[in-house]
Amino acid sequence: MATLHDLETPALLLDRSVLDRNLSRMQARMDRLAVRLRPHVKTTKSIDVLRRVSGGTQGSITVSTLKEAEYFLEYGVTNILYAVGIAPGKLAHAAGLMRRGAELTLILDSIEAAHAVRQAAVTFPVLIELDVDGHRSGVSPESPLLLEIAAALGSSLRGVMTHAGESYNCASTAAIVDMAEQERAGAVRAAERLRAAGFNSPVVSVGSTPTATFAADLSGVTEVRAGVYMFHDLVMAGIGVCEIDDIALSVLVSVIGHQADRGWIITDGGWMALSRDRGTAKQRIDQGFGLVRDLDCRALSEDLIVMSANQEHGVIARRDGHSPDFSRYPVGSLLRILPNHACATAAQHTRYQVIEETDPTVVACWQRTNGW
Amino acid sequence: MATLHDLETPALLLDRSVLDRNLSRMQARMDRLAVRLRPHVKTTKSIDVLRRVSGGTQGSITVSTLKEAEYFLEYGVTNILYAVGIAPGKLAHAAGLMRRGAELTLILDSIEAAHAVRQAAVTFPVLIELDVDGHRSGVSPESPLLLEIAAALGSSLRGVMTHAGESYNCASTAAIVDMAEQERAGAVRAAERLRAAGFNSPVVSVGSTPTATFAADLSGVTEVRAGVYMFHDLVMAGIGVCEIDDIALSVLVSVIGHQADRGWIITDGGWMALSRDRGTAKQRIDQGFGLVRDLDCRALSEDLIVMSANQEHGVIARRDGHSPDFSRYPVGSLLRILPNHACATAAQHTRYQVIEETDPTVVACWQRTNGW
Repeated sequence: MATLHDLETPALLLDRSVLDRNLSRMQARMDRLAVRLRPHVKTTKSIDVLRRVSGGTQGSITVSTLKEAEYFLEYGVTNILYAVGIAPGKLAHAAGLMRRGAELTLILDSIEAAHAVRQAAVTFPVLIELDVDGHRSGVSPESPLLLEIAAALGSSLRGVMTHAGESYNCASTAAIVDMAEQERAGAVRAAERLRAAGFNSPVVSVGSTPTATFAADLSGVTEVRAGVYMFHDLVMAGIGVCEIDDIALSVLVSVIGHQADRGWIITDGGWMALSRDRGTAKQRIDQGFGLVRDLDCRALSEDLIVMSANQEHGVIARRDGHSPDFSRYPVGSLLRILPNHACATAAQHTRYQVIEETDPTVVACWQRTNGW
Repeated sequence: MATLHDLETPALLLDRSVLDRNLSRMQARMDRLAVRLRPHVKTTKSIDVLRRVSGGTQGSITVSTLKEAEYFLEYGVTNILYAVGIAPGKLAHAAGLMRRGAELTLILDSIEAAHAVRQAAVTFPVLIELDVDGHRSGVSPESPLLLEIAAALGSSLRGVMTHAGESYNCASTAAIVDMAEQERAGAVRAAERLRAAGFNSPVVSVGSTPTATFAADLSGVTEVRAGVYMFHDLVMAGIGVCEIDDIALSVLVSVIGHQADRGWIITDGGWMALSRDRGTAKQRIDQGFGLVRDLDCRALSEDLIVMSANQEHGVIARRDGHSPDFSRYPVGSLLRILPNHACATAAQHTRYQVIEETDPTVVACWQRTNGW
């Protein structure tokens, strides 16, 4: 069996024990709230990860690209929600997926898009996207436009969906609890308005990892979408959604040099391997381009972060500006970097080297899909 | 022939006319300075692009990963400089490339790495990496360590190399001219010290796109490495290394909705397609996640940028905060986004849709390599 020392760096590591723990915790929460989980695969993009989520029964998923839909459809996953407003230019591709057996639900937030979908070659199920937090897309639950779009959709209408993306910027757990209720209440209110006007709205879909983690009540909601909870990351830890030790993903890097005068350890883990995501920059603790851990993913006695990054170079330094003990990190030694944002870091790689918390061997290599 | 309207968005566009112009301009500069260009392929990672650079004779290249070396070797490019300090764990892979016909030059900046290289199964040519600007790796041209590493390398030593990465942060052309001289002088000085101590140093390799563009003199330098000049980007335009119209790369996106109250045009070009690079954030003009152009890559009469980005959503707004004329950007219409950083944006994609400035048809699809 290969060990971490046999991998060529940089390499993306996935700790399956931590993954499984994250999956169980979220599933238990959903069971308690009596709501169905429709996992978002945009973070993980791997059938092997999905098989751990659904425990063999592949269930229904959320995707962020038609490429993901196509990939998972090839593995027999048919119930797919494409959770980005449909561009009319993608309808032919989407129709092809329907003909190949997908039950592909689309979302939209305009009359123009509704007309385009109704003119497509196949009948798609459609959810109207709602804006509950001013974060990006969607119509207000109270807007007249909601009913106009519903009328334009006719028999395609299946209900409503929203994503409280602003929950990523919440400063406290209490604020996330409030945001979860705002997300739930907005979606349920929109569905009620549709029903009062004579439309069907069987689906009330909400979700984000922070709101799914802290929602106190999900009455009226039929499904929750979340994705990053599978891997977690430093941004999630920074808003209290997970602990650092819940982060299942890390990047294995090699030390390639030292700049002793400046207190720098140079590695081959640059922004190409870590991503350029600086999501912790505006949080209470700025983790640079990532937090440094030892080969067993334990905290180092020195507080090291990736202070800066070039394409294939990471510059590691102590957070307090003092010089690290270079003798502990000789040229050729290995370190693990916990990512700011799991979705962004994983997307820089084509595969996961799968390990277990208590075992230094690589137990599997899981492929992932990328691109469009 | 396909037109831009036939492409599924987001798609990476490469304007071949602009590429060719950028290539000719740099080659003419190098000819004038009487120095050889060793193009860095880390930005473009495509044999089809390299063929335009070298005009059929494939010459010698610089790479940032062994994956790039492997990819180009398969196409017959053998003279390869791997310009990231060698990690001992990669030596077996590097030796394999040598056995397959590569003349793979390594770089390093420590005695430990020199010992590891000398113990490898094959004899590699090696350059000592110099630090001329405090940017990241390398030994000082004046340091005693330079001669100690040379002694440890023995017959592997071929010379010195440096990269003035700080040139990306220069505030004026005059500062870049000075940085180019600092880069040249440091490299030449180190080579002279080596020669004075009885070592060979036939190679004196320098380079970055800014210093290559503005160097006044390159006496004593034997080769220049540069890569991003082929595509250029908003960061290069921001420091005066190119004009906006010299940017050969753009991302084609579709409008998927409007948030009229907030003045937002929502597209399917999020950070996954644009990258999370915010390299212009600290420049005089912050271009957000990219500058918006029309389908022919002309400036719009409204000054639009990608203000924010989620994974598969871009939020376009006017820089002055006023509401754009939404009627000009209906749902389904196409826009082009010029990237902050070509290396980062191109790496989010697996292929280039090749177009010509004066022609709306897609003339070719060029693959690129990614990862490790």
